[in-house]
Amino acid sequence: MQPEQGLQELKARLAEISDINRAADLLGWDQQTYMPPSGAENRGQQLATLQQIAHDKTVSGEIGRLLEDLQPYVSQLDPDSFDARLVRITKRKYDKDVKVPGSWVAEFAMVTTIAYEAWGKARATNDFSIFQPHLEKIFDLSHRYAEFFAPYDHVYDPAVDNFEPGLKTADIKTIFSAIRPQQLELIRQISKRPQVDNLFLHLNYDMQKQWDFGVEIITKFGYDWQRGRQDKTLHPFTTSFGWGDVRITTRVYPNFLAPALFGTLHEAGHALYNLGSDRTLDRTPLFGGASSSIHESQSRMWENMVGRSLPFWQHFYPRLQEYFPSQLANVSLNAFYKGINRIQPSFIRVEADEATYNLHIMLRMELEIALIEGILAVKDLPDAWNTSFHEYLGVTPPDNARGVLQDVHWSGGLIGYFPSYALGNLIAAQLWELINKDIPDLPEQIRCGEFSSLLSWLREKVHRHGRMFEPQELIQRMTGSKIDPAPYMRYLTKKYSDIYGL
Amino acid sequence: MQPEQGLQELKARLAEISDINRAADLLGWDQQTYMPPSGAENRGQQLATLQQIAHDKTVSGEIGRLLEDLQPYVSQLDPDSFDARLVRITKRKYDKDVKVPGSWVAEFAMVTTIAYEAWGKARATNDFSIFQPHLEKIFDLSHRYAEFFAPYDHVYDPAVDNFEPGLKTADIKTIFSAIRPQQLELIRQISKRPQVDNLFLHLNYDMQKQWDFGVEIITKFGYDWQRGRQDKTLHPFTTSFGWGDVRITTRVYPNFLAPALFGTLHEAGHALYNLGSDRTLDRTPLFGGASSSIHESQSRMWENMVGRSLPFWQHFYPRLQEYFPSQLANVSLNAFYKGINRIQPSFIRVEADEATYNLHIMLRMELEIALIEGILAVKDLPDAWNTSFHEYLGVTPPDNARGVLQDVHWSGGLIGYFPSYALGNLIAAQLWELINKDIPDLPEQIRCGEFSSLLSWLREKVHRHGRMFEPQELIQRMTGSKIDPAPYMRYLTKKYSDIYGL
Repeated sequence: MQPEQGLQELKARLAEISDINRAADLLGWDQQTYMPPSGAENRGQQLATLQQIAHDKTVSGEIGRLLEDLQPYVSQLDPDSFDARLVRITKRKYDKDVKVPGSWVAEFAMVTTIAYEAWGKARATNDFSIFQPHLEKIFDLSHRYAEFFAPYDHVYDPAVDNFEPGLKTADIKTIFSAIRPQQLELIRQISKRPQVDNLFLHLNYDMQKQWDFGVEIITKFGYDWQRGRQDKTLHPFTTSFGWGDVRITTRVYPNFLAPALFGTLHEAGHALYNLGSDRTLDRTPLFGGASSSIHESQSRMWENMVGRSLPFWQHFYPRLQEYFPSQLANVSLNAFYKGINRIQPSFIRVEADEATYNLHIMLRMELEIALIEGILAVKDLPDAWNTSFHEYLGVTPPDNARGVLQDVHWSGGLIGYFPSYALGNLIAAQLWELINKDIPDLPEQIRCGEFSSLLSWLREKVHRHGRMFEPQELIQRMTGSKIDPAPYMRYLTKKYSDIYGL
Repeated sequence: MQPEQGLQELKARLAEISDINRAADLLGWDQQTYMPPSGAENRGQQLATLQQIAHDKTVSGEIGRLLEDLQPYVSQLDPDSFDARLVRITKRKYDKDVKVPGSWVAEFAMVTTIAYEAWGKARATNDFSIFQPHLEKIFDLSHRYAEFFAPYDHVYDPAVDNFEPGLKTADIKTIFSAIRPQQLELIRQISKRPQVDNLFLHLNYDMQKQWDFGVEIITKFGYDWQRGRQDKTLHPFTTSFGWGDVRITTRVYPNFLAPALFGTLHEAGHALYNLGSDRTLDRTPLFGGASSSIHESQSRMWENMVGRSLPFWQHFYPRLQEYFPSQLANVSLNAFYKGINRIQPSFIRVEADEATYNLHIMLRMELEIALIEGILAVKDLPDAWNTSFHEYLGVTPPDNARGVLQDVHWSGGLIGYFPSYALGNLIAAQLWELINKDIPDLPEQIRCGEFSSLLSWLREKVHRHGRMFEPQELIQRMTGSKIDPAPYMRYLTKKYSDIYGL
């Protein structure tokens, strides 16, 4: 077979696998949006079947042979070319996937589908015991997963590598160790200053208007409604069914403005990233985001660096006041800006402020590592959560729904994912420094409700590349250094010095 | 391999195929409910891929061998047992499917997905030319499909057999020829009588209240919301993702009460059928309805025999008046009953009355046959439609949206499906005579809003069997005769003699 023909054959097989995975993703999206309660068992079977088929096709001997045969050909190509990257990244994933038996994949799909339903019930009734046996199975499966990759430096490494290719547990621990004391010190400084008020966020806000305002903003960001839509779910997420269909979800509370507003901006950030993938990457493993942390850097940038900035609200606050005159007419722009940036230990990660957010992540990672190492038993997790939470944040969750049961991730088997959130914050700040150097009048543009230069920059430097580069490699190419906590600390210190008068 | 082991192996393979088909059905459901416009191309690829995989697995040599090996074993079983039926019906389908190349299946999926989008645009803009090239491809594919089954008695037979196993074009022509003159004569008789008024149906009706009233009724029918849901689509339909998840859709117009109301009852009739399948049939080819006409017999029974009957409205009309006092307070029960049963040639099939409905079907079947025989070109279809429509119903559609573009079926490649609708009416009347013999006080029960005896009868005699029997066989077992137009004519004549005083 000629190399060109081999490449064609490889691409056709990868397109087929991509289609199956996207169909499975739709099954998942539907499960979280519209599926009736009794549909869970059938859904579990369907997901297990599709994932098993995708897995079998992914690790098929034919793909292995094609990848092998193409090595000499692609070694002569520009290593940054699409074809070279496609073969390299597919090969890396193939070498991992081939170690995982299909039976494990099917069991994992089945277990997590049922666990998701159990988690929903457990959270709604605030009863961890409903979720416990499912979570035990999930950590057991995760442990077995790690063993497929023995020997490893750390039992948590194979899990992390699924979300952050090339990153090790030790790397993350180093980064977190560097930033943890600085964040704790900043929080301590802030706690000595007079607290800002944010009671106005907890008034009664019409849910449809909240939805509409979010839609208005992300439309200005550049979210393309011809290629997407928004629905309501318990836990917001973004999902891609291809270049032409990238959807987000949000949640709306009747008496708390922040979740819908900032949640919508956050998911729009993810969606803009996927919508910006070069169309030639569609139906290949290179479509989408470079890694979960790079993805989070995009969502957190739009949510925080943009959406919680003063210039942003200089533009949008009058509009928000029009939506909610009775709630906000007497709240000044400055008071609103301070209120949405109030630093205060709180229970819910996705609603946490920028200074405490990473602490939520660090405690989750420590618990995950303890669980997968077998040092902590799932039945003891609620107590461990509450103890650890009090150590990090000085408060104890009033119940499991606002504690250990708050996140959807574990129910879906997403072990090893949480660190990406904190890394995303750091990367966002690294990029933000760079962008502001390249677009010196960006704050002025944002003050005019103008986001096209920002989006173009991100499209050019980040989005269009999809998964062509590993996360550390991509950051290195852009910033000249690896993931670095310093810009995030500079960003936090500057912002909160202004707000709290440190 | 022991026969029991072979059966297990066969069931596991059929369950896998069922899962893939249901995932494809979800892709289709999503396309019609929530998919953003630009998602169509990706969706077409995904559907093509899944259908190709399902087809390849369906016609795999392994299944062929298992079916062959199991013949001696099942020939010793009770021929009505689940295992014997499963092997027999799977074999019948296998022998058909194996004649269809996978490339045809993938092309058909791709073409129909794109055609569906084109049809939506064509209908919205009333421009047949947008849809024409797609419909040409679909009839070309249908013709090629028929050729896989040559020699056939009639080129339309292979299409019909997909929806009515065992039925031939000639059978249907015989049935239609018998009933056509009788229906035309009934309509002629009615046209000589004073017309009843139904203007009150065309007032402004709050859309949410229409939705709520429909939900209230089908809940009383026994529709299980734990195992289903309702959404809005251009064209209402029912779809099953398994025993635990059977969904319906409806459409609501702001100034016409009938479509949402009777459409909801109609789809609920389909859904009750699927929800009543014995759970052991789930994930096998025996789950669901015996055929499209048997399915239609259920939907038409709940819509018409129940939902347009006087006893039904004796119970529900006061409730409907509570929902819509300003529109209906001055409309008597009798006037309402007559109004919803008004006989009048109209353009839209799904809104047609019980006397003219079958004529809509007959003209579609004739056009389909002419198209697939090559006697009629797709480009000439709108004219042919209008001419034929005038011959049958005495009126000419004002535009293509209310004419040739009204139905979704052709865009989805459902050629040969329409006859099932008319057959369903006839079967519904056959069953209705039987049910009323078995449950003599049924009208009284319906007058009390009580449907459980009716549903139990249908569950026992029809629903639980799923696809265990072919349509003619099932009817024969219940009524002692094949599909027979006489009960439907008796039903129509009695009902409309009362309403129009014939």
